[in-house]
Amino acid sequence: RLILRATEREALMKHYEEKRYTERVAIERIEAESRAQADDMVVAEVPFTILLNGVEVATLLCYPSALTFLAAGYLFSEGFVDAGTDLSEIVVNEKGCYVQVTAKGTVRLPHGNLTGRLVISGCGQCRVPLMQGVGNGLPAPVSSDLRMDHRVLIEMMNQFQESSAVFRDTGAVHSCAICDRRALGYQADDIGRHNALDKVVGWSFLNGIDREDKVLLITGRASSEMVLKTVRAGIPVLVSRSAATSLGVSLAEHLGCTLIGFARGGRMNIYSHGFRVG
Amino acid sequence: RLILRATEREALMKHYEEKRYTERVAIERIEAESRAQADDMVVAEVPFTILLNGVEVATLLCYPSALTFLAAGYLFSEGFVDAGTDLSEIVVNEKGCYVQVTAKGTVRLPHGNLTGRLVISGCGQCRVPLMQGVGNGLPAPVSSDLRMDHRVLIEMMNQFQESSAVFRDTGAVHSCAICDRRALGYQADDIGRHNALDKVVGWSFLNGIDREDKVLLITGRASSEMVLKTVRAGIPVLVSRSAATSLGVSLAEHLGCTLIGFARGGRMNIYSHGFRVG
Repeated sequence: RLILRATEREALMKHYEEKRYTERVAIERIEAESRAQADDMVVAEVPFTILLNGVEVATLLCYPSALTFLAAGYLFSEGFVDAGTDLSEIVVNEKGCYVQVTAKGTVRLPHGNLTGRLVISGCGQCRVPLMQGVGNGLPAPVSSDLRMDHRVLIEMMNQFQESSAVFRDTGAVHSCAICDRRALGYQADDIGRHNALDKVVGWSFLNGIDREDKVLLITGRASSEMVLKTVRAGIPVLVSRSAATSLGVSLAEHLGCTLIGFARGGRMNIYSHGFRVG
Repeated sequence: RLILRATEREALMKHYEEKRYTERVAIERIEAESRAQADDMVVAEVPFTILLNGVEVATLLCYPSALTFLAAGYLFSEGFVDAGTDLSEIVVNEKGCYVQVTAKGTVRLPHGNLTGRLVISGCGQCRVPLMQGVGNGLPAPVSSDLRMDHRVLIEMMNQFQESSAVFRDTGAVHSCAICDRRALGYQADDIGRHNALDKVVGWSFLNGIDREDKVLLITGRASSEMVLKTVRAGIPVLVSRSAATSLGVSLAEHLGCTLIGFARGGRMNIYSHGFRVG
């Protein structure tokens, strides 16, 4: 179904493996009583504009890896397209920092003053559990027979957290990875935790990967938007290295998602639907 | 100029001092080989809708402290109002999670498919240094005679990082504080680093505080948006506990802002305009 321009796709796949988008900058470093000229590596941050069927949908500030996946994942996560939508062409212009996506089938373009940002008009605390994305409400609850061994999960979290070279170089990115009950799969980095997740979801979407037996690992906080994106992708388990928020927990509970936080150093907190982790 | 409803203002001021918006949730904790029922504290996350002169401007997902300041700071940081705009009334409805702001003078309401999100159509890397907020371009460069001793800055960063009770309880918030060359001032927490900064800027705005001799301290990464918000507020120095990004550094350089990263444990990296720190 999908036509990726072959050279760009290869380039993007290689980028994840080989290329680090960093810049060396001249700094002054103060340490104890010394002050010295030094070099430092900073992570690249670029604006990236997504056009869907010729309409400007959003401009994301992002780390410029895996832009094809970011575009697809963002459009899907935010409800502009569905899993069944035919993304017939995705052409990334790296120099111009934009992507043109051609889609057939279900396409929801922004109108009025709605953009790709999820607009939430209520929550548990407000007693008005109504959420509005672009033309769609809460995603359907996730259903999955997945069962996982917590020791495998702990081992994968350890691997996951050690594998981002960009993080080691710059300390400035979040990561997201997808895994099944046995092994770690595709992993992406970004300066934004939402973008990192969208890249992984976009990867799974463009590669026709089943998601109902998968798990997402993230370094950033599990807030409401992270849970919603996970559930919308049909992924039953979200595991964070850091904390969860109240709205994240209540949405995960409501939507059948296993939410795990503080998964590091051999421990984890299970906030909802713990039956999937044995 | 400004009329805050007194009870709400008092309540909000007290909230920062006394109230922590957290929820106790039942979890399962896995640690070594044990799995046990336990309690955990999670930080409150709520959607908060901002109406400006009756028009819905944005819905933020936020930590519900200092909502008056968040509303004012967001409207100012994102260019909906200017420093000279008369915010004649700010009425927070905490139960409904929304705020109604009445403003006179310069007011830029969203139109078309623009929302409060900063839309950036170019950057250094793209060689098109054009940025568009809501009707405004890049902020004017910051100018200030402020000079600071780096030892005072290090001491304030230490205090700042130890003073968030919500972070100690939940590990899930970012903080922002304002200080002058001698002492730490108002501090705010939020689940989003942008919101925490907006709360502090809103506080300074509503209290008529001079900003050209102040410094912002943040726990989160210094990306382009954080630098832009700092400069737009007229604050000459931004100090982060964590990393800076390439676009953050180049904007700070261009806009006369002293940008400092990795300020912790007695050290710091100065990325731009280091003359203000002695």
